[in-house]
Amino acid sequence: MEEIKRVEPRTLSGFMELLPQDQIKFNEIVQVIKETYELYGFLPQDTPIVEASEVLLAKAGGETEKQIYSFKKGDKDLSLRFDLTVPLAKYVAQYYNDITFPYRRYQIGKVYRGERAQKGRYREFYQCDIDIIGDSKLSIINDAEMPSIIYTIFKKLNFGKFIIKINNRKILNGLFEELNVADKMTDILIIIDKLEKIGIEAVKEELSKIGVENSTIEKIEEFLNIEGSTDEKIAKLKEININNEIFKEGLNELEEVIKYVRAFNVDEDSFTVDLTIARGLDYYTGTVYETNLVGYESIGSVCSGGRYENLAEYYTKKKLPGVGISIGLTRLFYNLKELGLLNSEQKSISKVEVITMGVGVENAVEISNMLRENNIPNEIYKEDVKVKAKFSYANNLDIPYVIIIGEEELEKGLYTLKDMYTGEQEMLSKEDILNRLK
Amino acid sequence: MEEIKRVEPRTLSGFMELLPQDQIKFNEIVQVIKETYELYGFLPQDTPIVEASEVLLAKAGGETEKQIYSFKKGDKDLSLRFDLTVPLAKYVAQYYNDITFPYRRYQIGKVYRGERAQKGRYREFYQCDIDIIGDSKLSIINDAEMPSIIYTIFKKLNFGKFIIKINNRKILNGLFEELNVADKMTDILIIIDKLEKIGIEAVKEELSKIGVENSTIEKIEEFLNIEGSTDEKIAKLKEININNEIFKEGLNELEEVIKYVRAFNVDEDSFTVDLTIARGLDYYTGTVYETNLVGYESIGSVCSGGRYENLAEYYTKKKLPGVGISIGLTRLFYNLKELGLLNSEQKSISKVEVITMGVGVENAVEISNMLRENNIPNEIYKEDVKVKAKFSYANNLDIPYVIIIGEEELEKGLYTLKDMYTGEQEMLSKEDILNRLK
Repeated sequence: MEEIKRVEPRTLSGFMELLPQDQIKFNEIVQVIKETYELYGFLPQDTPIVEASEVLLAKAGGETEKQIYSFKKGDKDLSLRFDLTVPLAKYVAQYYNDITFPYRRYQIGKVYRGERAQKGRYREFYQCDIDIIGDSKLSIINDAEMPSIIYTIFKKLNFGKFIIKINNRKILNGLFEELNVADKMTDILIIIDKLEKIGIEAVKEELSKIGVENSTIEKIEEFLNIEGSTDEKIAKLKEININNEIFKEGLNELEEVIKYVRAFNVDEDSFTVDLTIARGLDYYTGTVYETNLVGYESIGSVCSGGRYENLAEYYTKKKLPGVGISIGLTRLFYNLKELGLLNSEQKSISKVEVITMGVGVENAVEISNMLRENNIPNEIYKEDVKVKAKFSYANNLDIPYVIIIGEEELEKGLYTLKDMYTGEQEMLSKEDILNRLK
Repeated sequence: MEEIKRVEPRTLSGFMELLPQDQIKFNEIVQVIKETYELYGFLPQDTPIVEASEVLLAKAGGETEKQIYSFKKGDKDLSLRFDLTVPLAKYVAQYYNDITFPYRRYQIGKVYRGERAQKGRYREFYQCDIDIIGDSKLSIINDAEMPSIIYTIFKKLNFGKFIIKINNRKILNGLFEELNVADKMTDILIIIDKLEKIGIEAVKEELSKIGVENSTIEKIEEFLNIEGSTDEKIAKLKEININNEIFKEGLNELEEVIKYVRAFNVDEDSFTVDLTIARGLDYYTGTVYETNLVGYESIGSVCSGGRYENLAEYYTKKKLPGVGISIGLTRLFYNLKELGLLNSEQKSISKVEVITMGVGVENAVEISNMLRENNIPNEIYKEDVKVKAKFSYANNLDIPYVIIIGEEELEKGLYTLKDMYTGEQEMLSKEDILNRLK
């Protein structure tokens, strides 16, 4: 007999692989997100994970490009997608003539970034994205719909209190223009974006390092310190009377978004204006969002996004403005599990295990099929083992009910239903079992 | 202004990317498969797409290995999974102590093979797999459950008549042992597997080429020609009285599987014994299945699988027998579309578009939320365009209903519901609209 050379089975670090109990919970969350996206009429999208490098990296550069999984197959340069936005841009440019605008799509799928391995950082992770793309223009009201969708999802997911933070990049851009630091805008935004993580003193230090003058830093700090209720913040922004068109445009947009966010019935407690949010990514041009789980701010934003003026400029001359959000599900799941917020109790999909005792397994088919036809997941235990082992299976998987079929049941045309939590059992007709389990 | 270097947006050949109408249909099929797998109690599994080459290719070799997408990232040799069976084997070996056996799992996901580009051949494609893995042993009744699951799925999918072909490798193995060509077994099985594609004469020629004697070829042909009903075939197999233990074991197993397939209520018309099925893959050891759409045999098997004695021998010493099936969904979808069997009529997820005429969009929120709370997907049209364009959107996406809110509706506290197919419209209360649409 040939000897087999065995390999240690292992999963790459930075790649999430779950045991059934966690996978069931993970899929439940995906289902809530997907259902909500669909209830808002978003169309499904499923783009390839592998794309031509030339296409995928048309825009990329810097940090992102270094992290990309690129490789050759034959004479082709290929890459694994690193987000779902670039594939969306490609798709909209490619199928422009087949698409009805505003194009509302969702995509839930895996993306790849070769980040340094670190607790809670994944190299393969799910993004759950929605975007609304307009053809040349797109109403600002769409920017207000995004928070209402975030709100609906996190209410349903029930992980506790959350807050959606809303800002408008134009307010910051206008301010910096007014402060004569427009040339350092991108760098300043990236620094401000770290405020929550590193604190105001570190932000000031970094601003100083890139050559922002102290008097300007003070004004930026004063601005970032604007506090109060949503309406108070907006009032203060008006009062500071910055005579800059971009600033004014941003403020108007923010006011409009807030008005409609309220119209969309988002609880006043669940959203706020946060002038410190910039979203490092340079393609956001207007409204930006982040979402925090209250009390767990350290895990960072669990749902972010914003408005961009030109989705697909690297693929087409058409102007395609859009607004979107993304939930980084793999990381969120990891954090929820670490924090003990998951409550993943369910170890089985089956609600019922059907077992036979001293009679053939074929006697289990009728009741099993009937339950299945009534959408009750169940399975027939088919192994030839002792009765105790048949019950162990249900115990190990926390299957809530066992149906037992033995000689007595066959004679009487009945089934014994055992509640595995209470231990109670009763001989019942098919119909009674169905009513009990429904 | 910086000029942008544009890239032609394109999708790699061999990678399926669908427009919304097809994607909706594709997802519907996935949903039927997933729901059915879950109704049978299979647990979800989601393994990484990227694995260490050493782990993924522990067993692979020959044709498969050439097709694999392998690459380096840093100093790591990585590969994209080429099926869902190897990741399953790895998973079961790796988490053996956490798994309750028999382990019933499904995985629906993308796999990668760099096959030569060809119509209907994909390099990225979905497999939809279920497997039942036993710890050291697994009842033959599991082999009979597989056809009942295939049956349930293809009944629900409703693509027309289909036939599940069942065989047992041991019957063929025993026969070849008896004919003294056991040393050529694998080659012979691969040739026989092509019977449907290339015909009996070509099969005989190929057998001759690998050195099978003419008298033996005649006996193989005679065997492959066994015809009649399922019971007649089994009776004939008994009559030919081959005195070989493996043959007898295979015949017993086949009889047992057929008995239970019937017990599982699979229509007599939807399955058959087909002695010519071998499944080229060398890891099948007992029962094997293929499924054909009747009248469309040329597209090949749409659901195949079988029994294997040792799933994870390259990762563990534990004996882990299993049985499983796989639906190659991307290819199936391509073929169904080519054959016009898809009936993908639905272009939108939304059942209702809510539009305002001369009043603010905020007035659309209440009815939209109410519909959503009642699981009716809908969307508010938010762009500031002419009324005609608002209706065009519903027309282009075949959204069946439009709800119109204007001044009159606001005054009366009613909504106008327009049926976009009949053109009829009526002013109704919220509650009446809900009843109409439910």
